[in-house]
Amino acid sequence: MIAGIETGGTKVICAVAEALDPGTILAETRIDTTSPEQTLAAIRDFLAPKAVDGRFDAVGVASFGPVDVDPDSAHFGRITSTPKRGWRGTDLLAGLRLASGTPVRLVSDVTGAALGEHRFGAGRGVSDLAYVTVGTGVGAGLVVDGAPFTQRAHPELGHLLVRRHPEDPFGGVCPFHGDCLEGLASGPAIQARWGRPGIDPGPRQRESLQLTSYYLAQLLATISYTTAPQRIVAGGGVMKTPGLLEAVREQLVLLVGGALADHPLTDPASGYVVRPELGDGSGVRGALSLASDALPPAPVLG
Amino acid sequence: MIAGIETGGTKVICAVAEALDPGTILAETRIDTTSPEQTLAAIRDFLAPKAVDGRFDAVGVASFGPVDVDPDSAHFGRITSTPKRGWRGTDLLAGLRLASGTPVRLVSDVTGAALGEHRFGAGRGVSDLAYVTVGTGVGAGLVVDGAPFTQRAHPELGHLLVRRHPEDPFGGVCPFHGDCLEGLASGPAIQARWGRPGIDPGPRQRESLQLTSYYLAQLLATISYTTAPQRIVAGGGVMKTPGLLEAVREQLVLLVGGALADHPLTDPASGYVVRPELGDGSGVRGALSLASDALPPAPVLG
Repeated sequence: MIAGIETGGTKVICAVAEALDPGTILAETRIDTTSPEQTLAAIRDFLAPKAVDGRFDAVGVASFGPVDVDPDSAHFGRITSTPKRGWRGTDLLAGLRLASGTPVRLVSDVTGAALGEHRFGAGRGVSDLAYVTVGTGVGAGLVVDGAPFTQRAHPELGHLLVRRHPEDPFGGVCPFHGDCLEGLASGPAIQARWGRPGIDPGPRQRESLQLTSYYLAQLLATISYTTAPQRIVAGGGVMKTPGLLEAVREQLVLLVGGALADHPLTDPASGYVVRPELGDGSGVRGALSLASDALPPAPVLG
Repeated sequence: MIAGIETGGTKVICAVAEALDPGTILAETRIDTTSPEQTLAAIRDFLAPKAVDGRFDAVGVASFGPVDVDPDSAHFGRITSTPKRGWRGTDLLAGLRLASGTPVRLVSDVTGAALGEHRFGAGRGVSDLAYVTVGTGVGAGLVVDGAPFTQRAHPELGHLLVRRHPEDPFGGVCPFHGDCLEGLASGPAIQARWGRPGIDPGPRQRESLQLTSYYLAQLLATISYTTAPQRIVAGGGVMKTPGLLEAVREQLVLLVGGALADHPLTDPASGYVVRPELGDGSGVRGALSLASDALPPAPVLG
């Protein structure tokens, strides 16, 4: 039996599967993310009765960040500089109290989503995939050659210093930078800019779509310039706004222009930027995939 | 015998070495980059007498781009959308007329420089390195786990859409975008902005350093956010400007702020951003390393 855990900013999803069939979830639960103690206790309560002889064959964790994902670090498994109340310094992996010797892999939540979509969703068929999420925060996760990238760290692209749209006087909501990407294009940023949640469906919808797609297309261009994924999956609550994905695809063409000749991003209909196929399940499916990757090699008869 | 070739925008450097000692250059030449025909002929003229029985054990090429570096592509080895006169569509590898079956590896010039510094220079001791060059153009190359990244493509970070400095009205010189990073911070951009080459050593020096470091620090922040290298080597003619490297390090701290807690970039003296150690030799040393990596495995006695 293997376990996959996605710890998100507002909820945690835990699931278990047979070790050899990570794609079939046998049991799953959702837990509200509250204090570290309460949240970790609820995860343990769900997992304990599913363990076989008190242990799992492997466990994969996809966590909100920033989190130290470097197995060689002294702080492996700890949440680092999060503004999330009470979580800074939390040792997530220790808090699971897994049986000694359990193989564990840890990635960021967005990297987990990228891996889930890569294995079971919109990223099947390519080896290099990016997943961007636009919701409470903005983030990116990368799969390179079918594996999480990097092994030592996770992207922090929510803090990208985007070029300001000339018609956007809004100061932004990022506690570190004010008007970095997350400060301008996350759900809370859009709410703060217009005084109401989500992209305005009213008279200012066109303006709101224009600003948000301008900022998000810069993220996609930057990822394309840096790591050259074969496909980008764009998920998260804000990306569900009608018209936003299409607007981002069009902005991307305008921003990159002739600099990447023959690149699929120059054609909005190419399927370079797509929606997730697993909905809210990308992350936990990625976490189960990670657990599966961490399984010890099967013994060879002979 | 192995050969390494760095084709740059203004000059080509070719070198040969013993297959088992890529760090010791036995012969080297510099060739002006003119037309593809003339330049490739000069490369062949240098290489031909060094080949053993008409062939090299392996050849590594680090080329100016954009160039198709994907061995699985139908256009592998071709220069793509360059504005460089006469070179668009040039099949660089075919033009070398290597003996059939010669193992060849190809990366971008900046990736070659990254690899050279990683193996023999300022990048020794880390597995993940970025090299940024600021000269005629602006570019970045990445080494991940000791190998060029990615295998399918090279970064195009010169076209990063940087945030404009509020006191910089200059329109930029990029033929695609005007005021992308390369359009604002390359050597030709600085020359066009001030009407004289290089960062002004006169009364506007402070202003010029401020603008250029602001734009270049955005490149370094973006690389740090995306691929999390352990060190960044900053080379190229513009980076030799007195005070610029120091200004970039300081801008980087200001731009990233608290978003990457405990990251070495938060300390300008940490050695996270360093100068190259191989001067103009990074690229060709990288090309020789590539050739060495491409050698067929030695036969095993037994």
